[in-house]
Amino acid sequence: MQRRTFVKRSSLTVIGMGMFGSLLFNKRAVAGLSVNGQRIESRIFELAKFGRDENGHGYRVAYTKGDIEGRVWFIELMKKAGLSPTIDTAGNIIGKRKGKNSSLKPIGFGSHIDMVPDGGNYDGTLGSISALEIIEILNENNVVTEHPLEVLIFGNEEGGTIGSKAMVGGLTSDGLQQKSQSGLTMAEGIKAIGGNPDNLQSCIRKKGDLHAWVELHIEQGGILEKEKIQIGVVEGIVGIVHWEVTVEGFANHAGSTPMNMRQDALLAASKFILAVNEVINSVKGYQVGTVGKIAVQPGAYNVIPGKVVLGLEIRDLSSEKIEMLFTEIEKRAATIGKDSKTSISFVRQPNESKPALTNKALQQTINTSAKALGFSTKFMQSGAGHDSQHIASIAPAAMIFIPSVGGISHSPKEFSTATDMANGANVLLQTILKLDKE
Amino acid sequence: MQRRTFVKRSSLTVIGMGMFGSLLFNKRAVAGLSVNGQRIESRIFELAKFGRDENGHGYRVAYTKGDIEGRVWFIELMKKAGLSPTIDTAGNIIGKRKGKNSSLKPIGFGSHIDMVPDGGNYDGTLGSISALEIIEILNENNVVTEHPLEVLIFGNEEGGTIGSKAMVGGLTSDGLQQKSQSGLTMAEGIKAIGGNPDNLQSCIRKKGDLHAWVELHIEQGGILEKEKIQIGVVEGIVGIVHWEVTVEGFANHAGSTPMNMRQDALLAASKFILAVNEVINSVKGYQVGTVGKIAVQPGAYNVIPGKVVLGLEIRDLSSEKIEMLFTEIEKRAATIGKDSKTSISFVRQPNESKPALTNKALQQTINTSAKALGFSTKFMQSGAGHDSQHIASIAPAAMIFIPSVGGISHSPKEFSTATDMANGANVLLQTILKLDKE
Repeated sequence: MQRRTFVKRSSLTVIGMGMFGSLLFNKRAVAGLSVNGQRIESRIFELAKFGRDENGHGYRVAYTKGDIEGRVWFIELMKKAGLSPTIDTAGNIIGKRKGKNSSLKPIGFGSHIDMVPDGGNYDGTLGSISALEIIEILNENNVVTEHPLEVLIFGNEEGGTIGSKAMVGGLTSDGLQQKSQSGLTMAEGIKAIGGNPDNLQSCIRKKGDLHAWVELHIEQGGILEKEKIQIGVVEGIVGIVHWEVTVEGFANHAGSTPMNMRQDALLAASKFILAVNEVINSVKGYQVGTVGKIAVQPGAYNVIPGKVVLGLEIRDLSSEKIEMLFTEIEKRAATIGKDSKTSISFVRQPNESKPALTNKALQQTINTSAKALGFSTKFMQSGAGHDSQHIASIAPAAMIFIPSVGGISHSPKEFSTATDMANGANVLLQTILKLDKE
Repeated sequence: MQRRTFVKRSSLTVIGMGMFGSLLFNKRAVAGLSVNGQRIESRIFELAKFGRDENGHGYRVAYTKGDIEGRVWFIELMKKAGLSPTIDTAGNIIGKRKGKNSSLKPIGFGSHIDMVPDGGNYDGTLGSISALEIIEILNENNVVTEHPLEVLIFGNEEGGTIGSKAMVGGLTSDGLQQKSQSGLTMAEGIKAIGGNPDNLQSCIRKKGDLHAWVELHIEQGGILEKEKIQIGVVEGIVGIVHWEVTVEGFANHAGSTPMNMRQDALLAASKFILAVNEVINSVKGYQVGTVGKIAVQPGAYNVIPGKVVLGLEIRDLSSEKIEMLFTEIEKRAATIGKDSKTSISFVRQPNESKPALTNKALQQTINTSAKALGFSTKFMQSGAGHDSQHIASIAPAAMIFIPSVGGISHSPKEFSTATDMANGANVLLQTILKLDKE
């Protein structure tokens, strides 16, 4: 039933726009193009088979067998669509389609097809398969755009946006030596997917190389679903800072040490975790703060915890806000330490991401395209990192979100409806067509 | 200086009691016996060498090479003291000294010499070396008691009071198959120290087999030191119950899940840990409650914790109080679960210890003996488990505590002064002599 709904809507669009005469008809016919939602969903499920284990869980982790097989399948489809795909030295897959005017800069769109361990079937794959779908719809309708088009499928997004980072010259030799989830170093992994880590220079795109970049993606949160909004227009991708937090108390016998003589590092850590939550919630906005990992020493029923190490993460679109929140958390930690006879110290981790704002004009183009298709929209931030955050440094970049059912992501339960996927792909298609007319 | 102090005090005792004529003199001379505090301390340091690693940390864990070598050294000293030591089928070392009246039941005293990993030099060893010291003092002074005496050095106290449990018939075949810290099963470990796990029946002592049992031990807490008390008279050994607590939330993306849409298991676990502390502190008494271990899944900076498993321990002299406190903690957990959209469940662990009260008359004998030596005393509970808790089920049992500097135990920093050790050994000696006259 859901599938019928979107087919009807796009038919109506074509009909509704078809009454303005022949010159306009061509434009309107192009504007009225609509993706094949069934094809998108069936390809999502086809791609999901690669890297799946015997229990049906997905492990298409970058650089592993599943990732490599998924890429072969995708490259095959790109070839059939006439994109003559190539692999750059960072392992990104690049498919090009000529435009009428070769002096114009290409419009880029795409995403990634690698997955977190035991991840979901929609994260990255929606934007990748929809990009291919748009090429096929243009082919099927014999539409040639003014600008050249480029479908970009980035390598190893989940392991640190490695491919897109390399494309903007941000992948260092230290970064290449880091271990990826596959067990290979990034350099070894890039080789495994057909790249050449010794010549990363040649994959770098300069500012102005692309006319624009648009990435369609699932929201990975529950805001659109909760507010019953069909399309999210992404204003920016949050900055992310990690701190390793160490709480030092004193390990002692849990039987013979009275309650009032303890220096319990886990009790202090618990107060700290609550304080983080309070500080993050103390100001308006979309900032998030998480303590996602914790380890206690010595870690036995009968020993008072002497040391706790935990991981603190803060994300926001504003670096200033991140710093302000952290300063407040530090203050709270000092008080907790004093009150509980423990000490709490912080080590800022080297892997932080700066916030990346998307292009304002592009946001409007997406919003207008979505509204024209009758969709409700919401301007929002992306709490998750994406390849687009790097591409935003070399081109006007934007992202389109569609609802994630239950707000669940990075999980086998990740799900988006075929209707929402087709809606998102249609907004992407119309956005590209509009950008092409600029 | 400290050593001189106790020598003086015991000399004074002998002089003070020496003025009541010849019939009484013999009794008084016996009552005036005093241990050699220097010998006790130097043996503490000698024993500490066994199982010590290259960094000077002690690993005389039961059934390991260090434990076995320490036992050989101890057995050698027992032989020199004429105790003709034997090893029972549970691996306990037993040294017997004849009394004048062989129809009387033996008076038992001793402790253990095994150690927790990276533990201290006083836990167990003080009671063991002091027991040997008393035999030697009696030998040196040609004193023969009415009752036979038995020095008992229990096997594997730290790994679950295994030797004493076996001696009262409490070690099951399941218990024998459990892994010990040494890596061996209890059965294998008992064999390694000269026992015979296939014939545990023969090591069992029945009710009435011993006239009394007294164990001298370091406090392992900081109460005596803080209150400047020399001798603790132990009223009982607390019961211990463990629960594995599981907090189930929902793992989700830490970037794209707004603060108000989270089911953060670690945030709920932190509230739970604070609630445990509040409940334990909400009533008067010496009860203790500890969350000493915690594990979080999936455990990454960028994933909201979906599941937390932690270890809860409650100890008190009253089983009813333990149950009452746990019921209150359960209530608090239900509220926390409801408020945080998580569920908190409990699995009571099978290894619980019942509280063991010491013998009231014996407590008085210890107190009187200590007071007669001019020591300050305090009636207190033992928050730690001890072999005495098992022996209390077959004989009138008691324990004598001396101060632990800084209240530190199960740590290389564990320390008690030579003065305090000699004080404790003298109280043990006088207590045994008083019991012998009953």
